[in-house]
Amino acid sequence: MILTVTPNPALDITYQVDHLKRGVSFRVTPLAEAGGKGLNVARVLAALGNEVSATGPLGGANGLRVRELLEKTAVVPKFIASQVPTRQTINVVDDSDATIFNEAGLPQTEELWERLSHVILAARAKVVTICGSFPPHTAPGTLTKLLAAARSAGSNTVVDTSGQALVAAAQAGADLLKPNEVELAEATGENALQAGATRLLGLGAKAVVCSRGAAGLSAFTPSLQVNVPPGVRLHGNPTGAGDSLVASLAASLAKTGEIPTSKPELTSWLNRASALAAATVAAPTAGAFDQALYQKLLEE
Amino acid sequence: MILTVTPNPALDITYQVDHLKRGVSFRVTPLAEAGGKGLNVARVLAALGNEVSATGPLGGANGLRVRELLEKTAVVPKFIASQVPTRQTINVVDDSDATIFNEAGLPQTEELWERLSHVILAARAKVVTICGSFPPHTAPGTLTKLLAAARSAGSNTVVDTSGQALVAAAQAGADLLKPNEVELAEATGENALQAGATRLLGLGAKAVVCSRGAAGLSAFTPSLQVNVPPGVRLHGNPTGAGDSLVASLAASLAKTGEIPTSKPELTSWLNRASALAAATVAAPTAGAFDQALYQKLLEE
Repeated sequence: MILTVTPNPALDITYQVDHLKRGVSFRVTPLAEAGGKGLNVARVLAALGNEVSATGPLGGANGLRVRELLEKTAVVPKFIASQVPTRQTINVVDDSDATIFNEAGLPQTEELWERLSHVILAARAKVVTICGSFPPHTAPGTLTKLLAAARSAGSNTVVDTSGQALVAAAQAGADLLKPNEVELAEATGENALQAGATRLLGLGAKAVVCSRGAAGLSAFTPSLQVNVPPGVRLHGNPTGAGDSLVASLAASLAKTGEIPTSKPELTSWLNRASALAAATVAAPTAGAFDQALYQKLLEE
Repeated sequence: MILTVTPNPALDITYQVDHLKRGVSFRVTPLAEAGGKGLNVARVLAALGNEVSATGPLGGANGLRVRELLEKTAVVPKFIASQVPTRQTINVVDDSDATIFNEAGLPQTEELWERLSHVILAARAKVVTICGSFPPHTAPGTLTKLLAAARSAGSNTVVDTSGQALVAAAQAGADLLKPNEVELAEATGENALQAGATRLLGLGAKAVVCSRGAAGLSAFTPSLQVNVPPGVRLHGNPTGAGDSLVASLAASLAKTGEIPTSKPELTSWLNRASALAAATVAAPTAGAFDQALYQKLLEE
């Protein structure tokens, strides 16, 4: 079983408009989906046929709605009821672009993070993914504690975060980190891809997979370096492509139980992840992907 | 007492961003306010020192929030609990523009409109204002029934709406209609201001006040026509200026109990309304106005 941890879930609202223009008043119909990177990862994992549970704090009407939306999926809910209302994210999608209004969310109590640690410990998942931002004013060291709980439970860990948290995840010995190029450079202060990845590996991460948009994927372990091009030329909604990468890598890690030590195996992980990301870009919403395209790309 | 009727209330969420750009992801903090034109009118009337009650359907978490937000004001709540969740409106305000995402809202039952008629009847208000859109799939004739209830209660009526509903309000003999220039032309099919207003008066409206942005205000009654320039050159957030016009006109009508029959009196109504609209543009949010500027403009 894979457990996805979402420290700062959101109710994702999508408004479709013809063409977003400043100063205009649009008449819109809301399309709601469970959001926050970790919940996208969970839905993709479930759609791939993996056994998956999702945890994180949910509160208020938005939290209730997130819970309801996930009931339609195979994701097993292990959420923690919080007094803090869950935030929303507004996605305005027009003919060519997605414009996103990302509420920061409200702080959670120390006690809630303790309860989350216990959920991670009790789950004894093959893989724990921790994805996305933490709410404002979360104590430093919270991610480290969650990763320690996963380690105690015997779970491998995949972390998709940025900034100081990315460095903390490396120091805590996370098995796999998935920053994009910008996040890697910002967190490590290294502009060169390899230097940034080497920095995180030196701190304790077992592997770093860096998403580079049209340049494809690069993976680094202490002994290997692999680059793969993107699955297809990317057209569509890029929101969620990174979450699908995480889902695919977490599924691979759950299957083998360890980071690849051979170049062909690491390459095959990246190719699968890249195909899934491309199939996600081809789907209209984050957390969904084009199954037929994914199968076709896998065969190629 | 003035009763404001809001057939389709909203929780208004404002996001302040530096400069709205398509394709960008913004980190935002939500600022919530009770919305829907009628609730803006109610807050302005309360701030002006009028006795004011507000009614309309409220449901779900957004409805609860609207109710809570109005508790901070002097507006007396006479809302109707609905099974239908209240919509939200997203206002993205940047350095120079307001971009609005207006959810259409969900249909209400026939029974709810019956209950609303009873609230209007029981209130015996001096003036009833009916402002803003109706939810989708509202039966034609609903506005007519609400206006009939107001008439039975001995209340004067002010209506701010558009399209077919504006024509229906005129036919139902509303005392005062407040379309803007575009709404007037669209509803009547007449491009000339005077022709459009004459059409509505011919159908049964007692007065038409048309807001014309930088061109000021024009009022028409069967015997009078008055134009006034805007209070000051308008800078700021125009959202809510129309609602302040309605509030000011409703306050004037509550005071005198009838549409002016002399040019000086009608002019003074328009000047007061125009000053309040200008003071609203100077305030950051709809439903609020700059008290000092309003007093200054009134004295001028």
